Amino acid sequence: MNLNELHKKNKELLNEEVTIEGWIRNHRRQKDFGFIDFSDGTCFKHLQVVYDNTLENFSEIEHTLVGSALKIIGTLMPSSGNQDYEIKANKIEVVGTCPEDYPIQPKRHTKEFLREQAYLRPRTNLFQAVFRVRSVAAHAIHTFFQEKGFIYFNAPILTSSDCEGAGEMFQVTSLPIDNLKQSPDYTKDFFGKKVNLTVSTQLELETFALSFKKAYSFGPTFRAENSNTKTHAAEFWMVESEMSFCDLEDNMNLMESMLKFVVKYVLEHCKEEMNFFNEFVEKGLLEKLNKLIQSTFTRIDHEEAIKILKEADVKWEFTPEYGEDIAKEHEKYITEYFDGPVFIKNWPKEIKAFYMKQNSDNKTVAAVDLEVPGAGELMGGSEREADYEKLITRMKEMGMESTDLEWYLNLRKYGSCPHSGFGMGFERLLIYLTGVDNIRDVIAYPRTPGNCEF
Amino acid sequence: MNLNELHKKNKELLNEEVTIEGWIRNHRRQKDFGFIDFSDGTCFKHLQVVYDNTLENFSEIEHTLVGSALKIIGTLMPSSGNQDYEIKANKIEVVGTCPEDYPIQPKRHTKEFLREQAYLRPRTNLFQAVFRVRSVAAHAIHTFFQEKGFIYFNAPILTSSDCEGAGEMFQVTSLPIDNLKQSPDYTKDFFGKKVNLTVSTQLELETFALSFKKAYSFGPTFRAENSNTKTHAAEFWMVESEMSFCDLEDNMNLMESMLKFVVKYVLEHCKEEMNFFNEFVEKGLLEKLNKLIQSTFTRIDHEEAIKILKEADVKWEFTPEYGEDIAKEHEKYITEYFDGPVFIKNWPKEIKAFYMKQNSDNKTVAAVDLEVPGAGELMGGSEREADYEKLITRMKEMGMESTDLEWYLNLRKYGSCPHSGFGMGFERLLIYLTGVDNIRDVIAYPRTPGNCEF
Repeated sequence: MNLNELHKKNKELLNEEVTIEGWIRNHRRQKDFGFIDFSDGTCFKHLQVVYDNTLENFSEIEHTLVGSALKIIGTLMPSSGNQDYEIKANKIEVVGTCPEDYPIQPKRHTKEFLREQAYLRPRTNLFQAVFRVRSVAAHAIHTFFQEKGFIYFNAPILTSSDCEGAGEMFQVTSLPIDNLKQSPDYTKDFFGKKVNLTVSTQLELETFALSFKKAYSFGPTFRAENSNTKTHAAEFWMVESEMSFCDLEDNMNLMESMLKFVVKYVLEHCKEEMNFFNEFVEKGLLEKLNKLIQSTFTRIDHEEAIKILKEADVKWEFTPEYGEDIAKEHEKYITEYFDGPVFIKNWPKEIKAFYMKQNSDNKTVAAVDLEVPGAGELMGGSEREADYEKLITRMKEMGMESTDLEWYLNLRKYGSCPHSGFGMGFERLLIYLTGVDNIRDVIAYPRTPGNCEF
Repeated sequence: MNLNELHKKNKELLNEEVTIEGWIRNHRRQKDFGFIDFSDGTCFKHLQVVYDNTLENFSEIEHTLVGSALKIIGTLMPSSGNQDYEIKANKIEVVGTCPEDYPIQPKRHTKEFLREQAYLRPRTNLFQAVFRVRSVAAHAIHTFFQEKGFIYFNAPILTSSDCEGAGEMFQVTSLPIDNLKQSPDYTKDFFGKKVNLTVSTQLELETFALSFKKAYSFGPTFRAENSNTKTHAAEFWMVESEMSFCDLEDNMNLMESMLKFVVKYVLEHCKEEMNFFNEFVEKGLLEKLNKLIQSTFTRIDHEEAIKILKEADVKWEFTPEYGEDIAKEHEKYITEYFDGPVFIKNWPKEIKAFYMKQNSDNKTVAAVDLEVPGAGELMGGSEREADYEKLITRMKEMGMESTDLEWYLNLRKYGSCPHSGFGMGFERLLIYLTGVDNIRDVIAYPRTPGNCEF
C-alpha cells in the first residue's frame, strides 16, 4: 500500500495489518526497540514505524542505516508520540541496504551540496516538495488549456528559424566535428543545413492558432546565454499560448485566469508541500498566493507606469524613462503601488519584437508584461501584427531577412485575423509558487554554463 | 461563440442570433445567394452558413475566397439541406482575405503535397483530426499517470550520458564551428565538455522512481539515425514510466492499463475524428480499438513465442531462432495466433540492454515487448537490474565504461529495490490510433534526414 493511500484512509485502517514499501529517512535505536521515520515518496508526510526485539531479525533491522529500502508488514496503531498513528511492525524485510557514507543524512544540507548530489536530492523533504509541486503545476497547466479546448502543440525543438533573436542559440549537428579540418560542409549534416535548438515555439504555434483557433505548447526551450544568475538556465520549460480572434484584452483575461487556476490547483493538491514552503522557505507564501487568487489584476499603459515611477518619492538606481524598459526596482514599486499584480501594456515599439501589433499611435505596440508582487515579470505576451504589409515593413526597419520567414508572413496573407499569445517560463512560476529562489533548485538536472551533469 | 459550443447547444440556440468567427473551407455561389462551409477549428464538424443579396456587402462576400477569415452574425435555423441546422447570415465581416493561389483548396491533396505545406495542413480535415487526437491522447497520458500519483519528471534534453547506446546522438555546441581550424576545445564549449541530445530519459527517470516510487516522463527525444522509413523521425516524443517495488508482472499490468485507458479516452473524447479515420483512413479501426479495450493481453516467454513460430506452417522470410530477435512477420503472426495483444517476455540477454534484470536461468533478462495486432511492437520495458555487482559485471561483459554512470550504479548501493519501467514512442501510438501510416503525418513539423523546415 502507498503511504499516500494509507494516510488518507488512516481511520478505517486503524488496527489493520498493512504492507508498506519504502525507505528509511531516519532511524532511532533504543536497547530493545527502535523507531523508523519511513517514507515511500508517494506523499510528503512520513510515517513512524516502531519495531522491537520480538522480531526474528531484530539485530539486522537495528543495524540497517538511513537510505535503506524496507518492506514492512505491520499494524496501524494509535501513537503515543507526536503523531496520530504509527505502524507497529510485525515483519520487516531489508530489501536494499545503504552504507554509512550515504550522502543524504537526516540533517541540514546546504543547497549547494545537494546540487552536487542532484540524483539523490529528490529524497529530501525540500526536493520532495519542489518536484511534486512541479509535477502538479504542470498538470494544472494542461488541465486549464485542455478544458478550454486548446490544442496541445508539440513544437519542434530542432529548428532552422530563429524566433525574433530571442536569445543565443545552441547549434545541433551530426557532423564529426572532432575531426574537422575546415569549415563544415552543412550539405553533409543530418538535415543538409545548419540547425539550432529552439528558443521559442511562438512562430510555429501561430500556425496552429490559425488552424485550431486555440493552441498551446509546453516543453523544453534553450538559450545559450552565458549568464550565471539565479533565474537563468540554458534549458528550461516554457508554456506558450496562442489564440485567434483574440485581442490584447482577451489575452490578458486568459493570462489572468490561467495564473489563478494554476495557483489554486496547486494550493488544493499540494497542501502539505505548500505548508512546508510557507513555514521553512518563504514566510507569508500562502498569504501571497491566496491574495493573488482574490485580486483583480490592474491594467495600465507603459506610459502611465513611467509617470507613476517618475512621480514616486524614491531614489532610483535606474531613472525611469518614457520609451525605455523598466528595471527590477520599478517592477517592485509598481506592484506595491497597486498592491497586487499589474499588467503593463502598450510598450514602446523600439524595445519589443518585430511581430507585435503596431498601435495607431505609431509609437507603441500591443505588448504586455505581467508583474506580480514578490517576483516581478512572470509572463509576457502581445497581440501579433496581423497585417502583411505592416509586418514586412517592420521587419525591414529592423534589418531582418524576410525570406527565412516566408511561411510565417504567409499566415498574414491566407485568412489573417487578430491573434494574440503569451509565454511563461515554467521555472519562473515555480520559483514564485514555492519561494525557492534559485532556478537550479526547481529543475531536476539543471543545465547552466559549465554544468551538464547526470 | 466557438463552433464546438454551438454544435453542443444547437437545440437551445435554434432561432437565436449568434456570432461566430472562423474561416471559409468551401464556398458555393448562386446568383442571389451563397453557401459557405465554415469552420473555426475548435471541432471537427463544420457549419453551413447561408447568405443572400439582402446583405449590404453581398458583392464583397460573394468574391471572398476559400481560406478567408470571417466574422458572422447570424441566426441558427433548421436546414433544408443535409445538415440539421445552418446559419442564416445577418451580417458578415471579412476579417482577412485569401488569394486564389491559396494552396489548401477544397479538393483532394496528396499527403506528399501537404507535407510541403506543413504550416497550412492543420486546416484540412485529415490534419484537424490527427492533431486533435494527438493533443487529446497526450492529455490522456498525463491524466492516467497523475491520477495514479506518478510524478511528472521533466528529463534533461541536453546530456553528457548515453543511455545504452540506444541510438546515434546529435551533438550540441555553442562553439563557432564554422570557423574551426582544428579539433574543438571543449573546455571552451558552453558546458565545458561534449554534450548530446538525449535518446532516452530512462536512466535519469530511475532516480525519480527511487525517490517518489512512481514517476513518468513525456517529452521530445532525438536519434540521429539516417533511416528514411515510415516510422523513423530524428525528433519524436516518448512516454516513459518507472516504478519502484515493481516487478515485470506489475510493469505489464501498468502497460496494459495505460494503453486501454488512452484508447478509451480518445474514443470518448474524439468521436467525430475517430469516425472519420474509420471511414476514410483505416476501415475497421474502431473495431480494432474496441476489441483491444475488451481483451486481456496474452503473456508468453520469448522462448514460447519462438516455439510457436517454428511450429507454424508458414514460409518465413526470416527463420525464427531461439536467442534471436523477432521480425515484423513474426510479430504479426503472434498477434494473429492469439487474436489480440501479446506481451513477449524474458528475452535472451545478448540482444537486450545492460540495465535489464538478469533472470536466474543466466540466459534471459526480464524484458518485455508489447505486440499489438496491426501495429507490431508498441511498447518495450523491463525490470531493471537492482543488484550492484550483477550490473557492473554485465557492463564489463558488454565493454561499457562504468565511470560515466557512477551515479546510476550508486542507485543500486543506496537503498536499491526491484523497479521496472517501460517506454512508448508517442507517434507509434498515434499511428496505431489513427491509421495514418507515416510518422511524418502525425508530427506537426517532422524532422527526418534532409528535412528541417519551418
